Amino acid sequence: MYPASVFITGANRGIGLGLVREFLKDLNAITDNRLKIVKIDIECDQSIKDAYVQVEKVVGDSGLNLLLNNAGVLPPYFTKGEISRETMMKCLNVNIVGTAIISQTFLPLLKKAAAHGSGDHWGADRAAIVNISSFWASISGNEDGSGVLGSLAYKISKSGVNQLGKTMSIDLADDKILVAQFCPGWVQTEMGNMGGRTAAITVEESASALVDSISKLQKQHNGGYYDRHLKVIPY
Amino acid sequence: MYPASVFITGANRGIGLGLVREFLKDLNAITDNRLKIVKIDIECDQSIKDAYVQVEKVVGDSGLNLLLNNAGVLPPYFTKGEISRETMMKCLNVNIVGTAIISQTFLPLLKKAAAHGSGDHWGADRAAIVNISSFWASISGNEDGSGVLGSLAYKISKSGVNQLGKTMSIDLADDKILVAQFCPGWVQTEMGNMGGRTAAITVEESASALVDSISKLQKQHNGGYYDRHLKVIPY
Repeated sequence: MYPASVFITGANRGIGLGLVREFLKDLNAITDNRLKIVKIDIECDQSIKDAYVQVEKVVGDSGLNLLLNNAGVLPPYFTKGEISRETMMKCLNVNIVGTAIISQTFLPLLKKAAAHGSGDHWGADRAAIVNISSFWASISGNEDGSGVLGSLAYKISKSGVNQLGKTMSIDLADDKILVAQFCPGWVQTEMGNMGGRTAAITVEESASALVDSISKLQKQHNGGYYDRHLKVIPY
Repeated sequence: MYPASVFITGANRGIGLGLVREFLKDLNAITDNRLKIVKIDIECDQSIKDAYVQVEKVVGDSGLNLLLNNAGVLPPYFTKGEISRETMMKCLNVNIVGTAIISQTFLPLLKKAAAHGSGDHWGADRAAIVNISSFWASISGNEDGSGVLGSLAYKISKSGVNQLGKTMSIDLADDKILVAQFCPGWVQTEMGNMGGRTAAITVEESASALVDSISKLQKQHNGGYYDRHLKVIPY
């Protein structure tokens, strides 16, 4: 089932924008009244609080059904490259801590939506946090180390996002707020095409599969880590 | 085989001190000339560089066989508790980024030791980085969420350490520097006894098993995540 309200971070381009287009299938103008643009800087707590106030005005007593944490960065970082605490901290701050704090800040709106649901129904149409993770979050699947792009900091951050989501999924189970993590695939975005490569799939292919899988989320998926087709990825 | 030189972080108390006692079995005085005390603040790059210079003076051309990253913090953090970017960042800075930067900074000494080894022998007696992780790093094994102690930030940080170690293990394989992660068990330290509980095992029991397992590390263990008895823990 599709959620009635969705808040997507990092929606100005790439996969985030693709998800907006997929949720609002016949979107043809930025003035479409189903679409509300909210400015947010996930490195700034006050900005997150301000965004909360704006979203609350839009969704009102219905609450927010789906928080879709998509914003992220991939700063090159190699084991044998330049040592930079600042670069690594920036990556962890945006990808993990930003995601944690947005999720915590938006809990009251998610709880409100969850309370409108009935019985033991779980899903993105009731209340859910979906984190855009990465195949690179998989520790067991890590076979190329820092790789050609310098994915050390990014891989650490996305493994951290998986543990964040798993932990929150347990903490929020009583509220029937579902939490799940997805790898969007290797997508033709600015990030996906880094290093002069061409990624495997289009933004539309990724977003279409993701939205389809998100709409299928049930209680059994709580805390899980999936590819865009809802197939389990080993941690 | 036991390493000829070991640098242990966070060795002033708890498991770190236990590991020092275990490596130097008949240690009875801080003036024992096999023991060198090095001051280090793993949140400070300059302090890490200074420590490197001191360790280099001690080990000389032999290089450093084993870097044992043990220092860590467990600040309480709950999904439904106070939102604090500072607390979460501090935990990730010490546990993940400090571990990454020490490991990178000490690479020249580890490479030197590795170069003295011969053929395809891998082990802590040649060159290794061992990271003290936690059972709480296991994402698949996470069944209690933030738990009674507020382990959200800590769990994220230790999952990140596992991915850091796995990534480095691949990046450093050509140099025959082994990287492995260990859960020390639930140990009677200040951290282990938090919340007024008494942990399951003594520091001596943990350190004894860890040192035994570290001495058994071989090529096949590179990148792995183990309990103190060298049994694989699922990520």
